[in-house]
Amino acid sequence: MNDTALGPGREFDRIRRILAKLGPTAAGVGDDCAILPSGLGTLVVSVDLSVEEVHFRREWLSLEEIGWRAAAAALSDLAAEGAETVGLLASVAVPRNSSEEDLLALMAGVGAAAREAGGHVLGGDLTAGDRWVIDVVVIGRTERPVTRGGALPGDGLWVTGHLGAARAALKAWQRGGAPSTEARTAFAHPLPRIRAGRALMRAGAHAMIDLSDGLGGDAPHLAAASGVALEIDLDNLPLTASAVNAAANAGLPAEHFAALGGEDYELLAAMPAGFGPVQAGEFTRETGVALTHIGIVQEGDGVRFRLEGRDLSLSGYDHFA
Amino acid sequence: MNDTALGPGREFDRIRRILAKLGPTAAGVGDDCAILPSGLGTLVVSVDLSVEEVHFRREWLSLEEIGWRAAAAALSDLAAEGAETVGLLASVAVPRNSSEEDLLALMAGVGAAAREAGGHVLGGDLTAGDRWVIDVVVIGRTERPVTRGGALPGDGLWVTGHLGAARAALKAWQRGGAPSTEARTAFAHPLPRIRAGRALMRAGAHAMIDLSDGLGGDAPHLAAASGVALEIDLDNLPLTASAVNAAANAGLPAEHFAALGGEDYELLAAMPAGFGPVQAGEFTRETGVALTHIGIVQEGDGVRFRLEGRDLSLSGYDHFA
Repeated sequence: MNDTALGPGREFDRIRRILAKLGPTAAGVGDDCAILPSGLGTLVVSVDLSVEEVHFRREWLSLEEIGWRAAAAALSDLAAEGAETVGLLASVAVPRNSSEEDLLALMAGVGAAAREAGGHVLGGDLTAGDRWVIDVVVIGRTERPVTRGGALPGDGLWVTGHLGAARAALKAWQRGGAPSTEARTAFAHPLPRIRAGRALMRAGAHAMIDLSDGLGGDAPHLAAASGVALEIDLDNLPLTASAVNAAANAGLPAEHFAALGGEDYELLAAMPAGFGPVQAGEFTRETGVALTHIGIVQEGDGVRFRLEGRDLSLSGYDHFA
Repeated sequence: MNDTALGPGREFDRIRRILAKLGPTAAGVGDDCAILPSGLGTLVVSVDLSVEEVHFRREWLSLEEIGWRAAAAALSDLAAEGAETVGLLASVAVPRNSSEEDLLALMAGVGAAAREAGGHVLGGDLTAGDRWVIDVVVIGRTERPVTRGGALPGDGLWVTGHLGAARAALKAWQRGGAPSTEARTAFAHPLPRIRAGRALMRAGAHAMIDLSDGLGGDAPHLAAASGVALEIDLDNLPLTASAVNAAANAGLPAEHFAALGGEDYELLAAMPAGFGPVQAGEFTRETGVALTHIGIVQEGDGVRFRLEGRDLSLSGYDHFA
């Protein structure tokens, strides 16, 4: 069928304008369901709900950034499964006082993130509302899904990229200030680590999770799902400059601050013992993403965080807190 | 991995209690992604967003009914594709003033609809919010996806079930009254027509669409997607008693009232010319669902609605109106 062969109606005029804006990034939109292209591997699905005033504020971000961030947050779950992107569907509640251009800007951001991750916009749903709500469904495909549940004693723990910048932005805004460019970019424009997740899967990752709730919040899930203990040496944490500065303002060690920071959307991976600095170097040359050894997997349960030779208790990000 | 092997945290305590409530209806929940079971056929995906005060009011429905209805609305898109249910994911924004029991009731309704449709709850996302928002992602599988785009001149147009009861309930509530039991049940507890959609697909359906926006709103989409004209004889419309009564209150012919009524979630199918009363009888014996011939497909474009020998202009339901 023709993508734009929708009947009359104001809602469908909106959809037609979104499809025109997305161009070839949109594919197969307009039927009751999106039909997934066939191919090898296992299909995986995830969903991530972003609500205005809970996950973001309009003063902080442009609507294009809000759309990008909502899509990137969902795509991060595909990265953590070692999956490539098939596509996404976006459900959007549009505030009654917003303009047509607002919705198009939001969807342009969603489309740009889908394109960055190598996928298409396959469909969605539009409705009215009081506040912006964006729920993004992502569909991926992988030869081997890497769950949270496969870590084995003896594995090394590795983290992609650098941590703490998104939290630095959040803290600056919450204080009424303006974040640094580095911090703002990390919060507004996180890069879904699809290629990094694929490379770690191919390198034999036993388990992965994305750090959407921070290392302090997410490492315990990997430990619980795998039935193992994690020992994480925070002295090795890869920090951003903005995290170091923000931690000083907050009166915390920078490593502590960064380990609490969600929404950097980096990956934590349990790699087999044979994966070392040489393999990490190959990974970085292939993906352009840093990879840092931060701990080990042991028999037992729970997560032990160490900083300067002492145990540190971390509580992760809690949306309900 | 173990479904309930999540780390600590209030959000995850909630998820654990939901999983306990859902029992075997929940499957594979707790990883970054839901892993779809492999099997024959094409996978299809759809999503449906329900927002408090836009799609429902708390005074009208129990939370279990709100959950059922949100899931059934999404599952209806699978029915219209001729797909069987694999499962669903539910994203929920939970108002800060709601109780743990409220969320469990909502998810019990979602789970009951998934079970009714033959699928599992595969995952989701929870967050805080001001109002209830439920976005349901449904995943189905079919040997042959039936799109909106395959209707051919000469096909007959058939509709499942009976129309207008959900609109009768809505009108009663909007007048400050109480709907009849029939009308209330149609609105609160719509039955996803999965088995009916499967039977129509196997009987050779050329095109299908679900009537979530009413016959007046949705028939034009089928015409546009197929590049054909539809001629629909509203005199033949299968009506419910509550629609007849509500139409009398509204001063409209009952057929007109019912054709404007969205949210009955019945199916409109374009069936090949050889599909007649005998085949419709077999369909009803197999599925327990009525099937009524309401029109024909012709060369051309647009939809011509006829009532008592005269053309009737219908504008469909518009969420933005």
